[in-house]
Amino acid sequence: MNGTAENIDTRISAKSDQEIATWNVSAPQQIEYHVEVSRNLLDPINDRIASWCGQRTLVVIDHSVEDIYGAEIRRYFDHFNIAATTLVLAADEASKELSSMLKVSDAMSDVGLLRRSESVVVFGGGVVMDVVGLAASLFRRGVPYVRIPTTLIGQVDAGVGVKTGVNRGQHKNRLGTYFPPAAALIDPSFLSSLPPRHVRNGLAEILKIALVKDLALLELLETTQNDLTAKDLANCASPDHLEILTRAIGGMLEELEPNLHETVLERLVDFGHTFSPALELIAEPPLLHGEAVAIDMAVTVGISKNRGLIDETIAERVLELIGRLGLPLSNPMFTPALLQGALEDTIKHRDGHQRVPLINGLGTAIFVNDITVSELAAAVDYVSAFDRAQSWRLALLNESSR
Amino acid sequence: MNGTAENIDTRISAKSDQEIATWNVSAPQQIEYHVEVSRNLLDPINDRIASWCGQRTLVVIDHSVEDIYGAEIRRYFDHFNIAATTLVLAADEASKELSSMLKVSDAMSDVGLLRRSESVVVFGGGVVMDVVGLAASLFRRGVPYVRIPTTLIGQVDAGVGVKTGVNRGQHKNRLGTYFPPAAALIDPSFLSSLPPRHVRNGLAEILKIALVKDLALLELLETTQNDLTAKDLANCASPDHLEILTRAIGGMLEELEPNLHETVLERLVDFGHTFSPALELIAEPPLLHGEAVAIDMAVTVGISKNRGLIDETIAERVLELIGRLGLPLSNPMFTPALLQGALEDTIKHRDGHQRVPLINGLGTAIFVNDITVSELAAAVDYVSAFDRAQSWRLALLNESSR
Repeated sequence: MNGTAENIDTRISAKSDQEIATWNVSAPQQIEYHVEVSRNLLDPINDRIASWCGQRTLVVIDHSVEDIYGAEIRRYFDHFNIAATTLVLAADEASKELSSMLKVSDAMSDVGLLRRSESVVVFGGGVVMDVVGLAASLFRRGVPYVRIPTTLIGQVDAGVGVKTGVNRGQHKNRLGTYFPPAAALIDPSFLSSLPPRHVRNGLAEILKIALVKDLALLELLETTQNDLTAKDLANCASPDHLEILTRAIGGMLEELEPNLHETVLERLVDFGHTFSPALELIAEPPLLHGEAVAIDMAVTVGISKNRGLIDETIAERVLELIGRLGLPLSNPMFTPALLQGALEDTIKHRDGHQRVPLINGLGTAIFVNDITVSELAAAVDYVSAFDRAQSWRLALLNESSR
Repeated sequence: MNGTAENIDTRISAKSDQEIATWNVSAPQQIEYHVEVSRNLLDPINDRIASWCGQRTLVVIDHSVEDIYGAEIRRYFDHFNIAATTLVLAADEASKELSSMLKVSDAMSDVGLLRRSESVVVFGGGVVMDVVGLAASLFRRGVPYVRIPTTLIGQVDAGVGVKTGVNRGQHKNRLGTYFPPAAALIDPSFLSSLPPRHVRNGLAEILKIALVKDLALLELLETTQNDLTAKDLANCASPDHLEILTRAIGGMLEELEPNLHETVLERLVDFGHTFSPALELIAEPPLLHGEAVAIDMAVTVGISKNRGLIDETIAERVLELIGRLGLPLSNPMFTPALLQGALEDTIKHRDGHQRVPLINGLGTAIFVNDITVSELAAAVDYVSAFDRAQSWRLALLNESSR
């Protein structure tokens, strides 16, 4: 504290009507958390989860996880003699609101957890991860919690970061905090029960990391694209599968660590996240987060191509990969007008500037602040044309391979 | 990040069923904020407030401040050409809940503030300070805000720290965050309109700082006790008045700065805050925060005396000062049973230990973990007996001075 209060007597005698005493409070704080990829977390011989709990714990379980793993989760805590109270939580986007957070924090009150030495454990996808993270961050101004993401997108994205949040009105994640878990434990085994569409949902975020910073990861996605099934990822069928997971997580953490509180608003991990929030909110039929991100990435690649930041071969290679991973390239509601509105919203969120990441090669990106409305329209046209052509080509390929 | 993911190939070949890759995310973060005592903040020649705002601002005003200063506040922002939207907020303890926080965050959405360069400004007492602080901390995961506390307790306590919060159910401040304001601007002029009971409310927190760490401040309180009126404090009638304010604020900040996130649960500033939360919640007629703290301090002084940590002369000197400052020493609802329940709650909040600060001299304190139920009863008896004796003596004094 650089106080000048010591000088108050002098100042009073100077009869200043304004400043009398000032202090600059300044304190360093260390943010620390542990991320681990570790298989068979629910096996009772595996004490990984138990080691992060005290004698009591509140276990919050994603509704869809409860059906498949609920009994196994309870057996696990019983085995370790940890008094676990369970709370099952809806995991749909519509439930991502303050009332769900209150269900969790009220359960924390009821269980009467100690403030620092007893943890909350959360099993599930991105929505419950964010809701429980917010509850843990608000309850007694912060209690420890352990994230166990069970979806691919949770394991490579939402589950390993420090963001928490709920939606409010028409705004995604409008209310939230930065609050690190004590630990994020990633078990690929959970992926075995993941529907294919949700595998693709996670692949979109993996592709994002590859595009902005990891050419080797991009090449891995290209060579394994047809084998990226839930079962193969869950079993880590080949070293490539595991490497895709660990490179995606490691790449994500590399970007997050120096900027955990988003002090810097130019973030590579925002690639594909400039126009997608608006689309995700209005798309009918609804899109998964990764699907909206894929559509955003495609148009952003179009802007890069039209600016000459990448040549057409590279642009097509990326668009083709997005399609091959089973992700959409375009959407009828993704109009230039929607993109323009989304960009205006994003500018507020990025404090007055666009700060849009554009790839300028494979595995490398820059930030721009001067995207125009006509560029948006041209990029949408370019991607749509590619999408139509590819659909024709894929149809012909399927035809000829019959 | 101390990743071991580089070694994943080795680990895979070792066929370990458990740990595959780990990362320890570790990042320093600097917490900074500015606290300033500065007179006549609302004078249009004074740019202190304006300098913390961008071109637009949301101004949240405590209901009771609106009546007295509302027009002046609006004129101030008009003068500086800052587009200020105002929101008046109820300030009673019953309004300290999530729905009030949502009123503020929804207003932030409506105004469409930029994320970093436009601020929220809050004028008021502890309740609105805490509610607006929570809204600012949650909105877009944190936007800048400026605290302008208008009550004495706000100026020396809630207004200069980083805690935010709302009540939930029967629990005070059950949901909250640690979120520093960009600045806390303290203008004693606001105190001129403060009712005497609210002056005493603030004096309780000043006395707390004095008792645990500042003998000189204690002596100042003893010498000025009869002149600590709202008007004299507001006008800084003597250098002593200003020194009381700046010593109290400086002492508080000294304690907060190294422990902003309460990493250490043994906090001197918790003196008087072990038993008072329970009393404050049930007292009928209601007590102000500082009144409950005074009653808690009195019983804690009783425990110190009974343990021989301080002699009877010192104990009586403190109890007499509490009474002379116009604060209560005891309360019919402050029974040993209530104290025991309060201590159990506090133990959860302090992670399994009592960690109760007790003074062991004037301006010095220690922490204990072994207070017994019979000690509580004995201390309550001691203070009640003193209180009765003092009431008689005061009555006699008044009699003789007529």
